Amino acid sequence: MPVTSQLSPTERSTIRRGSERARTEREELHAVLDAGLICHLGVVVDGAPRVLPTGYGRSGDTLYLHGSTGARSLREAAGEPEICVTVTHLDGIVYARSAFHFSVNYRSAVIHGRPRQVTDPDEKWRALQVITDHLAPGSWEHARQPTKRELAATAVIALDLTEAAVKMRGGGPNDDPEDVEADKAWAGVLPLETRWGAPEPSDDLAPEFGIPAHVLERRYPA
Amino acid sequence: MPVTSQLSPTERSTIRRGSERARTEREELHAVLDAGLICHLGVVVDGAPRVLPTGYGRSGDTLYLHGSTGARSLREAAGEPEICVTVTHLDGIVYARSAFHFSVNYRSAVIHGRPRQVTDPDEKWRALQVITDHLAPGSWEHARQPTKRELAATAVIALDLTEAAVKMRGGGPNDDPEDVEADKAWAGVLPLETRWGAPEPSDDLAPEFGIPAHVLERRYPA
Repeated sequence: MPVTSQLSPTERSTIRRGSERARTEREELHAVLDAGLICHLGVVVDGAPRVLPTGYGRSGDTLYLHGSTGARSLREAAGEPEICVTVTHLDGIVYARSAFHFSVNYRSAVIHGRPRQVTDPDEKWRALQVITDHLAPGSWEHARQPTKRELAATAVIALDLTEAAVKMRGGGPNDDPEDVEADKAWAGVLPLETRWGAPEPSDDLAPEFGIPAHVLERRYPA
Repeated sequence: MPVTSQLSPTERSTIRRGSERARTEREELHAVLDAGLICHLGVVVDGAPRVLPTGYGRSGDTLYLHGSTGARSLREAAGEPEICVTVTHLDGIVYARSAFHFSVNYRSAVIHGRPRQVTDPDEKWRALQVITDHLAPGSWEHARQPTKRELAATAVIALDLTEAAVKMRGGGPNDDPEDVEADKAWAGVLPLETRWGAPEPSDDLAPEFGIPAHVLERRYPA
């Protein structure tokens, strides 16, 4: 890996609020990204921010994003000197004795960097494999792979995971001692759980086409 | 309501890609926002985008965001001429016969606007009620409400829901006819389901303190 295991110490990626929640290990950045399904891509357009949900995949310390070559968001992202990509997992709501101390348990990764348009056909091919298998593991091998025309119609950008901030919160509320003593309100965590539902075969699929293992046995996350 | 039921027709909030997925009714914007728990707030800092997960609440056609007065993101958002707030629900992964046609089912709302710092104590009080009851319905009445000091330590910004784009995708894959005919790969939707887990009382809560109905009977979404 060309980067160190420590995440970036630049000004904007140094977490000031709740610094005890900051995680500096690269492995934790990878874990947050690998457990996510979509990211929120931030670009600046005419001086104003624009935030759009987008698919992605990770290969080592490179994040790949893709979209149609006709989509404005990716064209704009590719032309921008800087983008921001954020992946957030909401794990639960923290109920406190006081409204002031309500919070959420979460894991988030915020990545800043200059995007690179992927034009090399081999890298683009690998990037699409990474993105497809991130969204739907096992599908690159199972499904028909892209034609040259499809490859040309897909825009891919790469973002180095050099400058990133990982933040997490877990556990119960941090109530004031007087409120704990008063014993007037419930306090604790209501966990949020995400799981896969039963696969829904396409209407135009042959009825005898069984659900393949990579769909049926998919676990969350992964 | 001071705004029309039609969402903004401005240049940047007019959806070009997949315009059949655009929803123009204000009620659908409200539904996407009300079903969400956190948003992704985009601000421009030193010319670069920054995207951070943030809590919010809606009152009519005003969105409220809050944070500590010490938090950079909200200070920066309040000082910015423009921010972007995006709420996304991921409903499932769309498996297609070709990698090119893989997609996701989702609902998203993207709001652009100039934030307004909420300084009037009455509006700030109501905004905190809205945000608290969005994150944890019933909790504003159940928990201790803010003191003057806590109110002063909380920054609240308001964003009018005037300029917004709602986008949704549902249903199965849009495969090419040749791939449907070839019948070589599974196609369908793997739904993603989110639900509340069992409430976890705080370690320092009196053991006899029962879990109140607004926690125990909370449904998702709501």
